[in-house]
Amino acid sequence: MIASTARSASTSTARSTETRERILSIAAEEFAERGYAGTSIGGIAERAGVGKGLVQYHFKAKVDLALEIVQGAYAQASFANIIGSADPLRGLAAIVTSIRTVARAFREDVRVRAATRLLREHDVIPATFPTPYVSWVAVIAQCLIDAADDGEIPSRENLATEAWHLVANFYGVQEVSQRLTQREDLPERIEEMLEREFILLGVFEPRRFLVESPEDSVQL
Amino acid sequence: MIASTARSASTSTARSTETRERILSIAAEEFAERGYAGTSIGGIAERAGVGKGLVQYHFKAKVDLALEIVQGAYAQASFANIIGSADPLRGLAAIVTSIRTVARAFREDVRVRAATRLLREHDVIPATFPTPYVSWVAVIAQCLIDAADDGEIPSRENLATEAWHLVANFYGVQEVSQRLTQREDLPERIEEMLEREFILLGVFEPRRFLVESPEDSVQL
Repeated sequence: MIASTARSASTSTARSTETRERILSIAAEEFAERGYAGTSIGGIAERAGVGKGLVQYHFKAKVDLALEIVQGAYAQASFANIIGSADPLRGLAAIVTSIRTVARAFREDVRVRAATRLLREHDVIPATFPTPYVSWVAVIAQCLIDAADDGEIPSRENLATEAWHLVANFYGVQEVSQRLTQREDLPERIEEMLEREFILLGVFEPRRFLVESPEDSVQL
Repeated sequence: MIASTARSASTSTARSTETRERILSIAAEEFAERGYAGTSIGGIAERAGVGKGLVQYHFKAKVDLALEIVQGAYAQASFANIIGSADPLRGLAAIVTSIRTVARAFREDVRVRAATRLLREHDVIPATFPTPYVSWVAVIAQCLIDAADDGEIPSRENLATEAWHLVANFYGVQEVSQRLTQREDLPERIEEMLEREFILLGVFEPRRFLVESPEDSVQL
């Protein structure tokens, strides 16, 4: 009897988690398509085929959905994943893999697209989002220091500046690609960007890292 | 009598133009500070110390103000000015001067800041804005071709690709600078960016163009 109650409780928790995730995914589609102002709890409920009350049981207000999507995108930011994984990449391999993975996520992961749009619209959303770019710049700077230690690039003093520009460049590339081709040309623009950054970094043996291979990307 | 009527008509036209410009400037301040959704005709009238009716006499709706500000920013885009001016710059001098001028306008010209914010919020505004980036990429590509013809950079085939990346890079630099320092570090980031781009372009005698001199910027 106790076992059965426990089992049933855990089934119900699992079902609740599943519903919550489904609502988040549908909210992400709405935010990505319509932006913050165009999205409503009612519209999310309708698209999910559930009652408004069920959505509000999990998320009291639209802003809570937006916050969770943005925070989730930060938590799963591929740098954290790659660097925290059992077989961590480091140096240039970490940078290249992460940038390709994030670029792929922009195209394939609606939650990442939603988070990007919400961050762009941040000044019309009544919530405090994490400051973008800062942690990326720090992680890339560390990767560049490792790359210099490992003899992948020449040592130099201003690697933090290079990291700042690499992040700014990546942001600009994805933005222009999005506005002009709905990110259709993003993969090739990213490869062009990596080649340009590698020249600036003075990478020894760049072909080790730049050989085009979509499998280099890590699934988020 | 006829002369006096004509004079009075032209005075009244001048006054009307002045009022219109003043409303546009105040609308730009509102859009830059509060974004599209946070701005209202009533708020603009209040800030201008005029009646709502006078604002609406010049601009029927908020969207008309937004459109005029964005189109105005395009029309005065410094490339057009510099290239169309009596003593036109060309090649690398045109690129460097334009980029510094636009970067300065981001900091000093509230209409440019408003236009940038409105373009960022474009998907919540019921108007069709000009597609950004396209004309800039074309103009920069032409400047690069001229630069190669004039022996400022080596000739190569993919100058249009370089122009695309220069524009994307500029956009990313101003965005990250804006988000992290409210554009306080923009001038130095722009100089760093120009140095990086010059290495990639293989500019001969880069010091001819890169010597730090704020007077290089052309007033918009």
